[in-house]
Amino acid sequence: MTLFKQVTIVGLGLIGGSLGMAIRRRRLARTVVGYGRRPSTLRRAQQARAIDVGTTNLRAAVRDADLIVLATPVDAIGPFATQAARSCRAGAIITDVGSTKVQIVRALERSLPKRIAFVGAHPIAGSEQQGIHAADPRLFEGTTCVLTPTARTHRGALRRVAQLWRHIGCRVVTMTPAAHDRLLAKTSHLPHVVAYTLARLIGAEDGAGVPRSFLDMTRVAKSDPGLWDDIFLSNRRELLKAMTRFERQWRLARRFLERADRVRLARWLARAHHRREAIKDSE
Amino acid sequence: MTLFKQVTIVGLGLIGGSLGMAIRRRRLARTVVGYGRRPSTLRRAQQARAIDVGTTNLRAAVRDADLIVLATPVDAIGPFATQAARSCRAGAIITDVGSTKVQIVRALERSLPKRIAFVGAHPIAGSEQQGIHAADPRLFEGTTCVLTPTARTHRGALRRVAQLWRHIGCRVVTMTPAAHDRLLAKTSHLPHVVAYTLARLIGAEDGAGVPRSFLDMTRVAKSDPGLWDDIFLSNRRELLKAMTRFERQWRLARRFLERADRVRLARWLARAHHRREAIKDSE
Repeated sequence: MTLFKQVTIVGLGLIGGSLGMAIRRRRLARTVVGYGRRPSTLRRAQQARAIDVGTTNLRAAVRDADLIVLATPVDAIGPFATQAARSCRAGAIITDVGSTKVQIVRALERSLPKRIAFVGAHPIAGSEQQGIHAADPRLFEGTTCVLTPTARTHRGALRRVAQLWRHIGCRVVTMTPAAHDRLLAKTSHLPHVVAYTLARLIGAEDGAGVPRSFLDMTRVAKSDPGLWDDIFLSNRRELLKAMTRFERQWRLARRFLERADRVRLARWLARAHHRREAIKDSE
Repeated sequence: MTLFKQVTIVGLGLIGGSLGMAIRRRRLARTVVGYGRRPSTLRRAQQARAIDVGTTNLRAAVRDADLIVLATPVDAIGPFATQAARSCRAGAIITDVGSTKVQIVRALERSLPKRIAFVGAHPIAGSEQQGIHAADPRLFEGTTCVLTPTARTHRGALRRVAQLWRHIGCRVVTMTPAAHDRLLAKTSHLPHVVAYTLARLIGAEDGAGVPRSFLDMTRVAKSDPGLWDDIFLSNRRELLKAMTRFERQWRLARRFLERADRVRLARWLARAHHRREAIKDSE
């Protein structure tokens, strides 16, 4: 089912590449154009069937697009959106896949001309791997894509972006940019800080004594650290609040341990266990 | 290859059950006897081919054993060892699979009669599942089993216990009980506290926004909390030290975030990333 004539994907990493593959497999666009800085990435994206054609010229990439998806690191989304808006057609939709939303949505709603419809989006999918070589057309299947419309969001554009993600296999949910950033601070950014913190405590010398559980818990510390400083800083306030909430729970455990208070420690653990059990692993 | 005439496994949960299955599959003992409190568990263990015969009578279970493996929660290992020692033959070996070692080894070396050889052991394997129904004969394959001999450990007994775990597919390493508890505080007990802490922050209402990374990081919070308070408390000092080291790294990240110090934050992340990359996931 063709939803768009031309989708242009700006940034052909894990997310951009996987999105292109998913769109092409399902024929959701007549053409998928890829923009990348490196010709080698464009070649790989074409070989992986993530794009029909690729170019290192942003103006050429976006000129005929009816949908432009910004799939760059969060800090580059604003600048690319501004540039893309200068060259694309009136009525074109710009959307993104950034892991934080308040900063991006606010900046773009201020800077983009009215003839461009912007829809903030974040497919909650990914892995510790990166780059086009890790792209997977099924990456988004069964995951949640959050759309973050505001009072200024064009409703028709919102519907069309929602339709795209649904066709790709996502459950689409809608929330404010602030609600998104609060949720992701807790469920993604905080756990990443935790994983990086744990990872700083180990070394190759611990090799023999590292259980699978530790490896699982620190796997996200294998992700590109260069992406995560941007994400953390662009959601700094909510992340710091989430860290404070973590510290509060942590201090309880610490106190019960210091006092060898088995009863309270057991209760603390049981509640954590109960909360975890309430979350479905299939999400 | 028959290493023992009779192995008696005390406690038929995930670890005891899996061990029985592994021993029987490889015919490492002529007979595997299981002790459990509940006849229903013994029946299931027999159906799962984890034991040849089962009994709720500890004396009968251990009387003819040349190896007794205590696979109960850590707090029950001491009491069961004392009881088993009263009924078993001179020269029998008692070993355990407890997740902490200092407390257990110290207690047993004090209390067990000289005619019994005790070897402290901890196969670093497991899952968030529990009970005989989750037992798996391949649970230990490719994992590390730590033996914690002391100056008082009978060398022949140590060799035989090492041989058993090697035949089951473990890499066997030897360290002092204190070194074991320090290592496990860092690689297992601390991450469990972290996972339980994270789990306390979520609720079913977050369902849609919980990424796979969060689920992976909190999976161990699904383990039986009733096992973990014992483990934490029996390794309290080392765990608190590991928590302090975690807090030190955490505070760095917190400070860099508060100051929006991108350069130092990036360096902090890069080091964590580097440390995690140095650990092989196949361990």
